[in-house]
Amino acid sequence: MGSELELDEARARFVGLYDRLKDELLQDPVFDLMDEARRYVEEMLDYNIRGGKLNRGFSVIETYKLLKDGEDMSEEEFFLAGVLGWSLEWLQACLLVLDDIMDNSTTRRGQLCWYKLPKVGSRAINDGVFIKGSIHKMVKRYFREKPYYVDLLELSDEIALQTSFGQMLDLVYSHESERDLSKYNMPAYRRIVQYKTSYYSFYLPIACALLLHGEKPENFTDVKNVLVEMGILFQAQDDFLDCFGDPEVTGKIGTDIEDHKCSWLIVQALERGSDDQLKVLYDNYGKDDPECITQVKNVYKELDLENAFFEYELSSYAELLSSIEDLPNPAVQEVLKSFLRKIYGRKK
Amino acid sequence: MGSELELDEARARFVGLYDRLKDELLQDPVFDLMDEARRYVEEMLDYNIRGGKLNRGFSVIETYKLLKDGEDMSEEEFFLAGVLGWSLEWLQACLLVLDDIMDNSTTRRGQLCWYKLPKVGSRAINDGVFIKGSIHKMVKRYFREKPYYVDLLELSDEIALQTSFGQMLDLVYSHESERDLSKYNMPAYRRIVQYKTSYYSFYLPIACALLLHGEKPENFTDVKNVLVEMGILFQAQDDFLDCFGDPEVTGKIGTDIEDHKCSWLIVQALERGSDDQLKVLYDNYGKDDPECITQVKNVYKELDLENAFFEYELSSYAELLSSIEDLPNPAVQEVLKSFLRKIYGRKK
Repeated sequence: MGSELELDEARARFVGLYDRLKDELLQDPVFDLMDEARRYVEEMLDYNIRGGKLNRGFSVIETYKLLKDGEDMSEEEFFLAGVLGWSLEWLQACLLVLDDIMDNSTTRRGQLCWYKLPKVGSRAINDGVFIKGSIHKMVKRYFREKPYYVDLLELSDEIALQTSFGQMLDLVYSHESERDLSKYNMPAYRRIVQYKTSYYSFYLPIACALLLHGEKPENFTDVKNVLVEMGILFQAQDDFLDCFGDPEVTGKIGTDIEDHKCSWLIVQALERGSDDQLKVLYDNYGKDDPECITQVKNVYKELDLENAFFEYELSSYAELLSSIEDLPNPAVQEVLKSFLRKIYGRKK
Repeated sequence: MGSELELDEARARFVGLYDRLKDELLQDPVFDLMDEARRYVEEMLDYNIRGGKLNRGFSVIETYKLLKDGEDMSEEEFFLAGVLGWSLEWLQACLLVLDDIMDNSTTRRGQLCWYKLPKVGSRAINDGVFIKGSIHKMVKRYFREKPYYVDLLELSDEIALQTSFGQMLDLVYSHESERDLSKYNMPAYRRIVQYKTSYYSFYLPIACALLLHGEKPENFTDVKNVLVEMGILFQAQDDFLDCFGDPEVTGKIGTDIEDHKCSWLIVQALERGSDDQLKVLYDNYGKDDPECITQVKNVYKELDLENAFFEYELSSYAELLSSIEDLPNPAVQEVLKSFLRKIYGRKK
């Protein structure tokens, strides 16, 4: 999107839309004479929707700009892309509010998780449901007369459901009460990441921008497949950095081993390990004891998973690039390449 | 709907549709090679969607039948009304699964609440979200080509959001951590019931049947207003029976007083009581002590709320009847009267 300055300016404009969208929601007649409820909802929205990195939301604007291929974006186009961008941030907020309860997390974005506030507790469940439910209200307000209105409703319904499917797979395959390494394998790993993360984090922003640009959803299949693969590569990087990343760079200390996560590394180790190594993994994975963690890491090192990962990353990158270059639309190619550049070889 | 026999037969046909709708959902490619997840979802759906009284769901079929005004319903019409009926039961299941967690309830429909099962726990949150998310998938499958498809999506989005608003008002006005009788008054009571209960339990089934019958949503306002009032009368009856009903008939022992519920009775008592009586209410409401409960009940008796309720019920009935008779469509009048007959003077 042009220069750094233009980018910063566009991002600030995008951020500025939030207040308008929130205020419109708070004007709902349900809140007339119910000021306490209105204040609660305002605080809840601010607490949970703002303060993220806004990558998903802003990428709708970036993508739309690339699709315009040099042409200027009108005020209205910027605004509509911004509404869709914020609708993704709304969805993300709903997922985080509910996931934090299910994961029993303590902090999120540098503050206490919403449900952890004494005055909130389990009513955060309804807050999450409410945040998600209000997305279609925003979409209806601004897109009702657009020819792609139904496509937009169906797209967001479909992807919200797929994310919920993915969450369910993840809970069934790696829930605390049913920890069992024998369930972990590459097809399951890929399926979980595809549904839980790729669709809403990678495919949805681009699909929104494509609809806004007048493209038909029946032509999205190839783009979707590329973005699903990109999401899987992104998650594998995350898993790799959790163990092999530099905490000084990533800013966090990994806990996947003690948390018994179905990560790319454990799946690879299970595929490649000897019987003796598998025994070490079964005995030590998922235990919050430094000695056990070291044992698991030793197996990862014996199997040279660091190199295995770099080979995977390189071949995945090459395949993605080749799939992108097979696509007919150069502007769409540009969009996907810009995404791929952002994630390739990332160290944090 | 004709004779008792016809009614039983129609109800059995309606119940029979459940398996087909469930099976279609379980055919989703996400479950390929993920049998454990498929089994989990099947058990979860059976546990939470079946076993209710099915009043909301079946009323779509009853209403549609009345709208046909003597004409036969085709196989397809019955099926489509049945799908919409089940979609209401799906919504109800989502609300119950999540409400039970928020209310910390133990049993529901004669079995442990879903989230209380050791293997489920807080992942019931995702299950509730999933149940709701799958409604539009069913609607899309069967209604995508209908002229009222968008109306159907918008109607269910709007009412789900309103229900979530109502839940939020209820939590803000009567949440355990913020118990305060001075917040309870008739406008707040009516608003909460309208949003939390009337829209989805009373208006939604009729609105679905009207759409299916080809009516336009812009003409639903008067019907909606009648059904919102009917929902408020229904809830007031519930509140009245909680204290004054015969447990032998209602099948349950009320706990609204000790639970500090914002019930019709306490709101009336707060409006009518002397300063001394208000003091008794403030001192004793919401305490799980038989002596306190008796004190509150004594104030209700001193204020003769039993008669006040009968007067309210009678005048509400008369107003509803008159609003119904003002409506232009005789078939719609018949539908609303049949609903009103079911609830008037109910003792359980």
